[in-house]
Order: sequence, then C-alpha cells, then structure tokens
Amino acid sequence: MSLSSSPITAVGVDFGGTFVKLGVCCGEQILETDEPIPTANHPGPQALIKAISDRVAKMRERHPAIAAIGVGVPGLVDFDRGFVHVLTNVPGWNHIPLKQILSEMSGLPVVVENDANAMTYAEWRYGAGRGLKNVIGLTLGTGVGAGLVLNGQMFRGSQCSAGEIGQMSIHFDGKSGHYGNLGALEKYIGNNQIAEHAVHRYAQAGLHKEIGDCTPKAIAEAAKAGDGIAQQIWGEIADWLGTALASIAWLLNPDAFVIGGGVSMAGDLLFQPLENKMKSMLSTVVWEGLKILPAKFNNDAGIIGNAALAGDSL
Amino acid sequence: MSLSSSPITAVGVDFGGTFVKLGVCCGEQILETDEPIPTANHPGPQALIKAISDRVAKMRERHPAIAAIGVGVPGLVDFDRGFVHVLTNVPGWNHIPLKQILSEMSGLPVVVENDANAMTYAEWRYGAGRGLKNVIGLTLGTGVGAGLVLNGQMFRGSQCSAGEIGQMSIHFDGKSGHYGNLGALEKYIGNNQIAEHAVHRYAQAGLHKEIGDCTPKAIAEAAKAGDGIAQQIWGEIADWLGTALASIAWLLNPDAFVIGGGVSMAGDLLFQPLENKMKSMLSTVVWEGLKILPAKFNNDAGIIGNAALAGDSL
Repeated sequence: MSLSSSPITAVGVDFGGTFVKLGVCCGEQILETDEPIPTANHPGPQALIKAISDRVAKMRERHPAIAAIGVGVPGLVDFDRGFVHVLTNVPGWNHIPLKQILSEMSGLPVVVENDANAMTYAEWRYGAGRGLKNVIGLTLGTGVGAGLVLNGQMFRGSQCSAGEIGQMSIHFDGKSGHYGNLGALEKYIGNNQIAEHAVHRYAQAGLHKEIGDCTPKAIAEAAKAGDGIAQQIWGEIADWLGTALASIAWLLNPDAFVIGGGVSMAGDLLFQPLENKMKSMLSTVVWEGLKILPAKFNNDAGIIGNAALAGDSL
Repeated sequence: MSLSSSPITAVGVDFGGTFVKLGVCCGEQILETDEPIPTANHPGPQALIKAISDRVAKMRERHPAIAAIGVGVPGLVDFDRGFVHVLTNVPGWNHIPLKQILSEMSGLPVVVENDANAMTYAEWRYGAGRGLKNVIGLTLGTGVGAGLVLNGQMFRGSQCSAGEIGQMSIHFDGKSGHYGNLGALEKYIGNNQIAEHAVHRYAQAGLHKEIGDCTPKAIAEAAKAGDGIAQQIWGEIADWLGTALASIAWLLNPDAFVIGGGVSMAGDLLFQPLENKMKSMLSTVVWEGLKILPAKFNNDAGIIGNAALAGDSL
C-alpha cells in the first residue's frame, strides 16, 4: 500500500441493504455521484454486480482517470481475497467472490471492505481523525459498529471480524445481545433500544409515548426544547456508550474516537455527557491523550472511504 | 527490529516491587540467573541501576556474547525513549531516563518495557502464542494486566498505556476501580477481591472464613476437594473474566488469549468455565478462530520477554 500525496481517482461503492450508492472520488473530493441503485431491484449478486460494473463503465467515460473500485459492504468480508462471507440484511449474498467478479467485469482493480471499516478509513485518511496514529471510528445507528486504525493501518483482526463494539458487554448480567452475549452495548444504544427505553422512561413519569415518537432525533429535539426526561435519556446513553469507550481506551490507548451515524447527530447532547463520563473513568494519561470527535463525512463516508482504500491499495 | 532465526544473547531484567531478577537468555533458553536484588536495598534509582549494571558486567565475563539488556518495569514507560514515567509501588521512580543511564553505565544497548508487555512478548515470541498474528497476554494476580501483539507487533497505544484490561468495565454501575471507573474488572478478579468475595459467599452459607483462608490457591484446592461453594466461586470468576475477554474478542478478533499469573494456576477450574462462557458470548466465526491458552513461562516470562525484546531490537 502506498499513501500517495497526490490522490488517485477511484470509484467508491457504498453497498447498503436498501441502496447501493456510487461516487467518483479523488482524495476527499467527490467528483460525481449518481442515482443510487435499489439493492432489491436485482435478482441475486451477479445481476447487481453487473449493474455496478455498468455504472462504473459510464463513469469512466466522464472520468478516464478512474483507476480502481472500492466496495464497502454491510457484513463479513475477507479483505485480502475480496470475498464476501455473508451480508447482514441482503438475501443471497453468501460466499461471493466479489473482488474477482467485479474486477473481471470492469477491468479495474477492486477492493472489498466492511462498511464500518470503510467509514473509519475515510475519517482517518481525510476526516476528523486525519494524521492520527490510533483511531477508532464508530457508527451509531440501528446497529453499533466500529473500525480500528492502529499504528496507522486498518486493523481487521484474524478473521476480518474486528470492530464489533455493538457486541461488547457493558454489564455481565445485562440484556442479551444477538449472540446471547449478555450486556451487549447495541441492546442499550441501538436506535430501537433507545426508543424503547424512552417509552419506558416517559411511562415511569406517567406519560404515554409511542415508539415512533421516540426516535433518537425526536428525543434530541425534546431535550433541546427543555424536556427533562429526554435530557436524562441522553445522559444514560452517554453513560452506556462512555462505559464501552472507556474500556476500549484502557485496552488500546487510542488518539481518538470519531463518532458518526444518526445517534451522533444529537451533538452536544451526547458529546458533552460522554466526555464527562469518559473523563471520570480514565487515568489522566489516557484521558489527556484522547480526543472524542464528531465524524466529518457521515453519509459520504462510505463512498470516500472505499474509494480511498481502493486508491491506496494500488 | 529484526526477528533473527538465530537468537541473540541478552540480559532480561524483571524489575518488580520486591525483587529485581536478572537472567541471561538466548531465545527461550535461560543460560543463567543469579540471586535477585531486593528492590528496597538501594536508596534511589541511580544506586539500583548501578547494581543492575554491575551484575550485567559480571554476567558478561561468563557470557561474552551478551549484546543487549531488556528491562521490564511495573509501570508506565515510554518505550521509544526508554523513559520511566512512574512505577507502581516503587517509591522514587518518577521521570527516570532508565535506558540512557543504564546504557551509559553498561555500554550495551538497552530497551525498557512495561512488565505485562514483556510477558506477552515472551509468550508470543517463544511461548503459548508463538507464530500467531494477534495475541493478548494476561497476567492475573493482585492486579490484572495485559499486553497486546497485533499484526505481529507489540502494540503499545498512543501513550504506551495500552493493555490495562484490569480497568475495563464489566458493569456500567458496578464496583468502583482505582480511577473511579465503575465495574473495573480488577475489582472482581484481583487476588484480594477474590478472597473478599469468597469470605462473603461462605458467610452466606453460614460458614466463617478469614481472608487469609481464601487465597485463589486455597479456593482452588477447596474446589478440587469437592467444595461446592469454592466451585461456584470459580464459575463466577470465569463469568467476570469471560465477559471482559469476550468484549476484547469482539473488538479485536484475536487468535489467542494467553493467560498467566497466580490466579491462572487454578487450571481447568478456571479455563473450563471460561471457555464455556466465552463460547456463549461470541459468534461462531470469532469463537472458532480463538484459542484460550495457559501461559508457558509464568515466573520466567519477564526475563525471557525482556531479553527477547532487547535482542530483537538490535
């Protein structure tokens, strides 16, 4: 891998359960995006990969400098082989040699990465964590995912499964996670769990709320408008998340956490109590070396990160 | 750093709060050890460093091949500079340029490392974790420490403070750790906390025990002799430790945990329920890629690891 100072033009593909988004990037600049491809429109992997390849071919007519494709997918991949083991929420995507198929179709070098890793790479290479040695990127949404840059390199773990912070435990006898793992962080601060918790907190105060009224966005708006219960809920979210991040800080002593995703849009409502919580949990040395940063790119992180991974792999 | 296949002869120094132990090593072979130096016998760092240097000079008369010195210390060091920020339980050891002083006195290259890192390095280089890419070494004793080898390299974190797993939280509202960090693992499975917990468990069953009767060793012997309460305690220790290690496995997806220190001497009493607990907390991919291994070296890990770090740094 070479980290060129003059960035390479590459296509970043952000492959989601609902849409596949494509963009032409040169460094952090997005030169072009086009209409997202609805993921379900194509019956099976071959057809969807063909649709991506066709899009890339058209992009190359307008941007002949395109030199590589990076695809980020929501699931378990083997980065070295560009092999998709399984995708979460995308039926039919098991054991797909995506790198091989797409590079043969497109005639371009291809890299395949997990989506949380690609987001982290974008933030480390060009975003909030730029220039730092050890960066942990988080996406807080329906799920809670993360990617790790350690000693200035993407760290993927022994089976490319590192970064599953949503499955880390914050309570040895707590709520059961997807794998039966007690105290799984995601079961406390995932979008749906925040909503359920809010309904419960309001009910304790004698107030009836529907789940749909308690999205993280709605709770943030209520808190900003002075709703004491909503403010308390953000404090609790910060306590739960802060417990997990403090544990990670003790283990890895990183330079920064870069936090993106819908839940992070609450801004200071989340970041202020989160910083207080983490400071209260860490030594001076670890805390003073640590930054808690909002993500720079958010919705574009996938496209930028995957394009950057592809360009840097040449 | 070069990982030579023909190991270099080096002195490993295991600097503890009570004794400083020295040994001449060639790879995993300890060629010679001598009488430990009582840490408190020397008034201040200069005198103790001089005593170490004098010992090394005598060792060189018998082993002229000695090419470097590695010192492992119980505290916070800057590995690159060989600088001791502060040692736990050793008065007067603040801001000591140990590498500089000892290399000037001895005329040899010196490296200075944290003791848990040195133990991990020994196990990764020559012990239970040999040949693996991602290894986490643990020492379970009065304190709970760890070192990380990631992508085949010692990972120290941004302020050389990585690996403090005793401070990781296993309960967001649990017992308060040394830094006010709620749920600190060390407050559940440190030697003294195991003893306190055992006294409490026996008292619940109407049995009076003194703290001194409840060392991890005594609880292990009782469990082996069929004491149901003692067996239950080992199950609880495995639950607490397993919660933390499962979280680390979700985060880092390592090849192995290598577990040493006094508490690990319980053997299957600890390892069997620990494996069951971790399997219950992890995905198939992460669990099947993971080994839980007893340490190979134990008391010699410091000497071997520090000598190996010194030799490999040439």
